[in-house]
Amino acid sequence: MARIVVDAMGSDNYPVPDVEGAVLAAREFGAEIVLVGDEALIKPVLDSQNTDGLKIRIVHAPEMLTMEDKGENLVLKARAKDAKNSMAVGIDLVKNGEADAFVSAGNTGAGMVTALFRLGRIRGVDRPALAPIFPTATGTCVVLDIGANPDCKPENLYQFGILGSIYAEKVRGVKNPKVGLVSNGEEEGKGNELVKAATPLFKASKLNYFGNVEGKEVIGGKVDVAVTDGFTGNVMLKSSEAVAKLITDKIREIIKNGSIITKVGGLLVKPALGEIKKLLDPSEQGAAPMLGVNGLVFIGHGRSDAIAIKNAVRVAKHAVDVNVLDAMKSAIEASLRSAE
Amino acid sequence: MARIVVDAMGSDNYPVPDVEGAVLAAREFGAEIVLVGDEALIKPVLDSQNTDGLKIRIVHAPEMLTMEDKGENLVLKARAKDAKNSMAVGIDLVKNGEADAFVSAGNTGAGMVTALFRLGRIRGVDRPALAPIFPTATGTCVVLDIGANPDCKPENLYQFGILGSIYAEKVRGVKNPKVGLVSNGEEEGKGNELVKAATPLFKASKLNYFGNVEGKEVIGGKVDVAVTDGFTGNVMLKSSEAVAKLITDKIREIIKNGSIITKVGGLLVKPALGEIKKLLDPSEQGAAPMLGVNGLVFIGHGRSDAIAIKNAVRVAKHAVDVNVLDAMKSAIEASLRSAE
Repeated sequence: MARIVVDAMGSDNYPVPDVEGAVLAAREFGAEIVLVGDEALIKPVLDSQNTDGLKIRIVHAPEMLTMEDKGENLVLKARAKDAKNSMAVGIDLVKNGEADAFVSAGNTGAGMVTALFRLGRIRGVDRPALAPIFPTATGTCVVLDIGANPDCKPENLYQFGILGSIYAEKVRGVKNPKVGLVSNGEEEGKGNELVKAATPLFKASKLNYFGNVEGKEVIGGKVDVAVTDGFTGNVMLKSSEAVAKLITDKIREIIKNGSIITKVGGLLVKPALGEIKKLLDPSEQGAAPMLGVNGLVFIGHGRSDAIAIKNAVRVAKHAVDVNVLDAMKSAIEASLRSAE
Repeated sequence: MARIVVDAMGSDNYPVPDVEGAVLAAREFGAEIVLVGDEALIKPVLDSQNTDGLKIRIVHAPEMLTMEDKGENLVLKARAKDAKNSMAVGIDLVKNGEADAFVSAGNTGAGMVTALFRLGRIRGVDRPALAPIFPTATGTCVVLDIGANPDCKPENLYQFGILGSIYAEKVRGVKNPKVGLVSNGEEEGKGNELVKAATPLFKASKLNYFGNVEGKEVIGGKVDVAVTDGFTGNVMLKSSEAVAKLITDKIREIIKNGSIITKVGGLLVKPALGEIKKLLDPSEQGAAPMLGVNGLVFIGHGRSDAIAIKNAVRVAKHAVDVNVLDAMKSAIEASLRSAE
């Protein structure tokens, strides 16, 4: 049975959504849960839940990483052998084989740095990447990197392609995933120096390489995996989220300030707008995997509620069940052999 | 009176929207219009319009640049002394002082390359930039570059900041515009190598420098000018447009396939959704100026209709009236002096 560590100190409203979501996941998906964090805070929430027959235990971690932890200070806390923060303690459980995956809705940077220093990288991987799942017109797209690596080399992008392709196939269930290189034009030859230098690596690879994709092809669902450097990916993610929020806010505002007819109409289409919100809601997709580290780590939005945590555990459990980590290791290994 | 050249061969449905929009602009804004393109195509459309008392003339240009014109071929056509395509002929009218600004809804790349080769750059400007106006939660934001320069140096970004600031102030009417550097994090120190190297230039400048901005601050309306390299800017623009389209398409689909109640509601909120469409419609913003070339050039969406062309002429005329070109020249000149 998949054993999933949930960072109880992760979400903005910790520990309630984190603990409640973990309990929901234990019941619905039969996952074995390890809650890591301040036991004095976790226990009352856990005791308030019906946990009959569920496998849930607490591992005490008295400290936590926050948005204030960054730069050198963060690196020190992420590396410290005797670190007592919930991320380090939780990730060590995965490292030591006591659990199979780690899920947190905490500070993304802290999660990435802690995972990188404590788990290390898959052999042959130069730069691990954070890979959120974008909603698209036809389903979803794995986009990587979106923040771990603001400056990349062509080889990094190529490895992102391999990791993302395996993840899309194994975890998202996409057969022979189409992999695109995010660029400022669809035609071959368009791109910055990085994209131009990465293109031959993709063309010579065994990946199902689609070619360049613009933002509109990514959101339009033309590819299953979209590869980009962490700077561009981050700007793309944040802009997309902001545009979605701008539109839904404006619709709400117009309906609220509208005529009585508009208001009645608004009431009638409310369930439809709810569907849109669900479509765009990151909590529906669970959390973003960090691909390339030597272990399964998932980082969710700080504003995750219990449902988002539950979904993150569902995805993490599925990733364990299909053994995506070993598949990524083999694929990277094979790519290194073919490059020799 | 401002004399505006309109490329009659620009839009996807040329020459009808282009000619009709130009006529509308001549009437509404009192602009003097030069229609450039194939006279045999333009004349029938123009004759079908009421042009009494309007100053509109045709300058014949038998050829046109299309999406097929790119790379070396495009450069040759853009440079040719005896070029007979509508963009080259139209831009030459500006160059020779026979007109004050050029507006086209044609191929963006062709417009940029033709403007660059025929007008040259403002003295001291290293790289001109295309600067569309993004809709934001609080109004609009000038974003540059979005495609002319996929790879930039820190000095290029700094000059984009100067050009964008002058444009926002003079043409958009923003007092002391706030200028942000698009980055993967708001905090100083976040960014790729390019952003990090550009930051000191902005901090030492006379610009109203806001600091780093993420996609959400740009769309959220925190700054009036957002500076980025053409690769990132292009991905940002295309993703934002695609997300907006995805949402409005999905709303339409849900209402169409919904229950009778949802359908009735959809009918009642239709005007409200129209407002959203208008908010996001690039045609409302006219066209994107190309800043840094030695002349006023505006490039609109290929799918521009007559209203979009009219709005583009309105913006171009305003840019002429406030003499933004001389203001940009002075600002660049001053920045070079202070750097000495």
